[in-house]
Amino acid sequence: MSGNTYGKLFTVTTFGESHGPALGCIIDGCPPGIELTEADLQRDLDRRKPGTSRHTTQRREADEVKILSGVFEGKTTGTPIGLMIENTDQRSKDYSNIEETFRPAHADYVYTHKYGFRDYRGGGRSSARETAMRVAAGAVAKKFLAQKGVTVRGYLSQLGPIKIDAFDWDQVEQNPFFCPDVTKVAEMEAYMDALRKEGNSVGAKISVSASGVPVGLGEPIFDRLDAELAHALMSINAVKGVEIGDGFACVEQKGTEHRDEMTPQGFLSNHAGGILGGISTGQDITAHIALKPTSSLRLPGQSINSRGESIEVVTKGRHDPCVGIRATPIAEAMMAIVLMDHLLRHRAQNADVVCDTPVLKG
Amino acid sequence: MSGNTYGKLFTVTTFGESHGPALGCIIDGCPPGIELTEADLQRDLDRRKPGTSRHTTQRREADEVKILSGVFEGKTTGTPIGLMIENTDQRSKDYSNIEETFRPAHADYVYTHKYGFRDYRGGGRSSARETAMRVAAGAVAKKFLAQKGVTVRGYLSQLGPIKIDAFDWDQVEQNPFFCPDVTKVAEMEAYMDALRKEGNSVGAKISVSASGVPVGLGEPIFDRLDAELAHALMSINAVKGVEIGDGFACVEQKGTEHRDEMTPQGFLSNHAGGILGGISTGQDITAHIALKPTSSLRLPGQSINSRGESIEVVTKGRHDPCVGIRATPIAEAMMAIVLMDHLLRHRAQNADVVCDTPVLKG
Amino acid sequence: MSGNTYGKLFTVTTFGESHGPALGCIIDGCPPGIELTEADLQRDLDRRKPGTSRHTTQRREADEVKILSGVFEGKTTGTPIGLMIENTDQRSKDYSNIEETFRPAHADYVYTHKYGFRDYRGGGRSSARETAMRVAAGAVAKKFLAQKGVTVRGYLSQLGPIKIDAFDWDQVEQNPFFCPDVTKVAEMEAYMDALRKEGNSVGAKISVSASGVPVGLGEPIFDRLDAELAHALMSINAVKGVEIGDGFACVEQKGTEHRDEMTPQGFLSNHAGGILGGISTGQDITAHIALKPTSSLRLPGQSINSRGESIEVVTKGRHDPCVGIRATPIAEAMMAIVLMDHLLRHRAQNADVVCDTPVLKG
Amino acid sequence: MSGNTYGKLFTVTTFGESHGPALGCIIDGCPPGIELTEADLQRDLDRRKPGTSRHTTQRREADEVKILSGVFEGKTTGTPIGLMIENTDQRSKDYSNIEETFRPAHADYVYTHKYGFRDYRGGGRSSARETAMRVAAGAVAKKFLAQKGVTVRGYLSQLGPIKIDAFDWDQVEQNPFFCPDVTKVAEMEAYMDALRKEGNSVGAKISVSASGVPVGLGEPIFDRLDAELAHALMSINAVKGVEIGDGFACVEQKGTEHRDEMTPQGFLSNHAGGILGGISTGQDITAHIALKPTSSLRLPGQSINSRGESIEVVTKGRHDPCVGIRATPIAEAMMAIVLMDHLLRHRAQNADVVCDTPVLKG
Repeated sequence: MSGNTYGKLFTVTTFGESHGPALGCIIDGCPPGIELTEADLQRDLDRRKPGTSRHTTQRREADEVKILSGVFEGKTTGTPIGLMIENTDQRSKDYSNIEETFRPAHADYVYTHKYGFRDYRGGGRSSARETAMRVAAGAVAKKFLAQKGVTVRGYLSQLGPIKIDAFDWDQVEQNPFFCPDVTKVAEMEAYMDALRKEGNSVGAKISVSASGVPVGLGEPIFDRLDAELAHALMSINAVKGVEIGDGFACVEQKGTEHRDEMTPQGFLSNHAGGILGGISTGQDITAHIALKPTSSLRLPGQSINSRGESIEVVTKGRHDPCVGIRATPIAEAMMAIVLMDHLLRHRAQNADVVCDTPVLKG
Repeated sequence: MSGNTYGKLFTVTTFGESHGPALGCIIDGCPPGIELTEADLQRDLDRRKPGTSRHTTQRREADEVKILSGVFEGKTTGTPIGLMIENTDQRSKDYSNIEETFRPAHADYVYTHKYGFRDYRGGGRSSARETAMRVAAGAVAKKFLAQKGVTVRGYLSQLGPIKIDAFDWDQVEQNPFFCPDVTKVAEMEAYMDALRKEGNSVGAKISVSASGVPVGLGEPIFDRLDAELAHALMSINAVKGVEIGDGFACVEQKGTEHRDEMTPQGFLSNHAGGILGGISTGQDITAHIALKPTSSLRLPGQSINSRGESIEVVTKGRHDPCVGIRATPIAEAMMAIVLMDHLLRHRAQNADVVCDTPVLKG
Repeated sequence: MSGNTYGKLFTVTTFGESHGPALGCIIDGCPPGIELTEADLQRDLDRRKPGTSRHTTQRREADEVKILSGVFEGKTTGTPIGLMIENTDQRSKDYSNIEETFRPAHADYVYTHKYGFRDYRGGGRSSARETAMRVAAGAVAKKFLAQKGVTVRGYLSQLGPIKIDAFDWDQVEQNPFFCPDVTKVAEMEAYMDALRKEGNSVGAKISVSASGVPVGLGEPIFDRLDAELAHALMSINAVKGVEIGDGFACVEQKGTEHRDEMTPQGFLSNHAGGILGGISTGQDITAHIALKPTSSLRLPGQSINSRGESIEVVTKGRHDPCVGIRATPIAEAMMAIVLMDHLLRHRAQNADVVCDTPVLKG
Repeated sequence: MSGNTYGKLFTVTTFGESHGPALGCIIDGCPPGIELTEADLQRDLDRRKPGTSRHTTQRREADEVKILSGVFEGKTTGTPIGLMIENTDQRSKDYSNIEETFRPAHADYVYTHKYGFRDYRGGGRSSARETAMRVAAGAVAKKFLAQKGVTVRGYLSQLGPIKIDAFDWDQVEQNPFFCPDVTKVAEMEAYMDALRKEGNSVGAKISVSASGVPVGLGEPIFDRLDAELAHALMSINAVKGVEIGDGFACVEQKGTEHRDEMTPQGFLSNHAGGILGGISTGQDITAHIALKPTSSLRLPGQSINSRGESIEVVTKGRHDPCVGIRATPIAEAMMAIVLMDHLLRHRAQNADVVCDTPVLKG
């Protein structure tokens, strides 16, 4: 039911399957007067696009986005923004052999039971291809957030067993992994090459953060900022875990260790990830997500077909051996959408608030 | 804005502050004809209730729930169910000293900036006291789910540094920690006693699972079952991380290791936690949450007051040194609410679906 | 499903049946800092209350409202406002004879089919008694609107065949009908006395208007201000028609006659009822509603019972022979709720808008 | 804010301006397995299309709809259905003279104040052109409803001063007015010709009804079926009034006259328009709407420009002298969308209901 919309005020509704004619989305509730061109969206779309290095799927998609409405004379009008990306490299013949096959760890089996049948071409709606529209919508949110001094950025924090040690934002866009540690890039390249040769896949951890977020965003008790971020980030294909701030490390922390003490000069730490009581503190918002290994493998696995009979499955199509590699712009997009939505929600209710207490530095 | 409702079809809207006259909620969208009495709700409320062991806050609340509407002659009518719990042990004098004080890791500071002032009595709306109504609403969901063969249960999987080794569902209700490993209970008791003496607090990890869930629940792409569970679980006070199935362990897993192979006799493993592509597989749904240590400590910490001046804070009131201890029924409640909502959503759209493919055993 | 909430940002969710323990509601999304006491709500509740003249039902209800949350030290906190009115004069024995009877033009038959059974005591949830909570919520909206210079007022414009000729706002609160034409009050009194004697009922027309509404409220294309007003007003029990501005008179108007010409000094007329393209113009918002005659009559009518057998129905309980008489405060409340919700929605999206065009006088 | 979505379970979100590249919509929540082709949508689109007779605007649009997603092998998949119609006859030069002009009774002035500026080309988003997507979405709903035995049909019941006397469904599609009274068609033709010559416009009344609706649809108290219909119908451009059943005639009716008595053979009348207590009775649902005269006139009118200066306005573009003429398929579409949404909502909550009481014939 109607699960294809995210947001309450800044809403993003998407459509499109892996091998249909087009992907698209409608962004509703965007404030008017924001300068917006297709180039603004294309930049992040190109960061997510397949086929840009040998480490991602070799599907070739231009992912060229068209703005169909909601922008007039270079500015948003306040009316819904319609976006579309035509699918060009569909090659549906690649998938015809799996029409009656369920692949382990894919959505084939559950889609079939939920809807009575499925679009078997490239995963249909369950394909990660739909994330292109999230990235486009996120780029709109980023434009608005930039006006408000908010920046959302992400990076790869772990690729399979390889963790980052050093950190440099400037490195993130310099390699195909969004890896901030230049010393680990060669190791990642080698790891990925071996993995591809093996026909296997691996998981990854992506981190995303927002700086410049004002204090006060988030709507307790159910629409807390952390809860909405968890929703948005967990909705990305292959994500199996979400952490805010210290996340699961909190389990072993003592209160004296975890609490972020405050001084007139600012917070002394940020274990909370910039969110307390479900509301932004003004510090950097930090989140981490775990992505499972891609399920399409060239190594055979046991499965069943649509008649429930035992079969062996080997995937032959084009796939990402580590979906995490292209997930950084997607995670950024979802965080940007959540923050923009909450910025609008906050000012709807609290535009008249006057507060004498000084704002701490983040 | 309107952040106090959870669910789309089975909706739970709550109100109430720690030291106001009452807590309450409205459950809308509950199917008619379900047998329901106050005793059904009281059982879970008593499991969450403070003051039942020396390890939780000594606030004394009967947490006696009244059904004000929506039930007639012992059955739900299909109209909204109004519930209320009166606050009886408020002692608001305990809190008067903190009117102008911000406590580190509390919501005081963010509430003040968001709303312009705050209800300083016991945390006001940000108090974990509001979770009582979640538990009551969850108990309604559990009644409906039970009719459909779905059972939701939770347990403590880690208390600070103490992890469980053995597992026995029958032990969970036999100790104040909801600990399934009887061999660890004494260690936990001792740990908590030391912690309380020290004036400190610690984090915890809670696990919750649902069995008997039919295949097909979850509404991609944004309202995936895992995304909604993440939202619901992260909305619980003090939660900083959510995992579905193997969660963050996926980062280092290879595809061959993670994928749950299928045979005509059933799935061979459940790394996915019962959810693929955002839709239930029919296996047990498993989730884990990380709770941060309570922020109210008897050990002094640096902070500021409402004029931005440096102060030292020591908490004196009644508090839980480990909020995780009472969180098990809350996590169960949120999972039950999500599953019930999705069961209704699924049948709204897919009631006419016929599927020839056999259903695998969970 | 979840049909008991109105509003997107300023949301009102109600519960309660005619003969249950209590009625209540949760108002979510109310801005903080608004002065609010129970007396603010009681004023409108008393205007709606039954039993204040011989022309309305003789049920005696104090309709005393309690604020259970969301207000601290006399001001709204921004957290949900819980309200409750206990039912005191329930006399459910009056209704026991109709347990198996369907009354023509009542909701008995449809509730039975929708939910499988019904709460037969006084109409259960379908009773006009639920409108008490709308009035209470509307009073909160009125407080906020007053701060913004917006006033919502209503009056009876027609009672059965008796139309008003003269108009004086000052008269509206001086008679039990909310009639602005003092010359018609005696005629209405006599008409109602005759009607009651006859055991029959009659329809009515209520008008409601808002002045001081800023230009710009309303969210095309589906959440236009007129569409939301139609929704809100048509949701009131017994309403069968809604008009904005000239309403059905537009059918025979020519364009030159209908269009409200503009001059630098202001609009020259207000046929549009203050709404163009679904957005407020800054003129008075005017709406009219038609209420059907009450269906509970002392004159026998043909009906069926729960076994589908033919029966004759005569109503004996206490009822309003003209529901329109008490509907004025309810219509005001719904208009106030819609305007408040839209005021918040508008500023969420358009808070940064700068417009050089001068605002016309209303 | 996010006002471009209608429905809760079967949701329709639209985008597009009069002179942008395209119009589009996303239909979410549609059940899977419904046979659907572009031809199914085109039929109703052609009924609404401009330029098919001399009585409507001479803008030439093929209104050719493309299905971009959600349909696979001729059947809906249960995933979002993306639709698009490219604008082909935009001629934006026609409108350049009105960039700084506000036209009386148009949305120009309110859009400018709401959003800070406006898309002046043909009304932008406020153009009736957006209704094409409503009609397309309505056609999808009609396909589903047809499977359930529900038929939605509309007709013109009054054109300016000309009321219909006779009624024949078979005539409705035989003339350009959707007029069911063949004896009035010539009179309407002549009236429209004179009106066009005069440069003026006129209002109209459209009626729409649904037969075969099961008893039980509608979600009190706010999402009553009548309230949702009022919302949906009032959201159509130019609509100023909505009636259910007898509508405003109820004001002068007595209870004995209005009530629809019941017998084992069925209801004896249908004054209620098939809805009691906000829930369908199983009888025909009947609604009527009043449409105002088009505001674009060739007769000069007083207005202001964007600097607030007095001007005289004469419209020169292509327009409908009576918007009501093309409104019939739009009203049908909105009623179909509402009914489909409520059919899904009803079965979500009440799928398990068993009711022994016999269903009366409609």
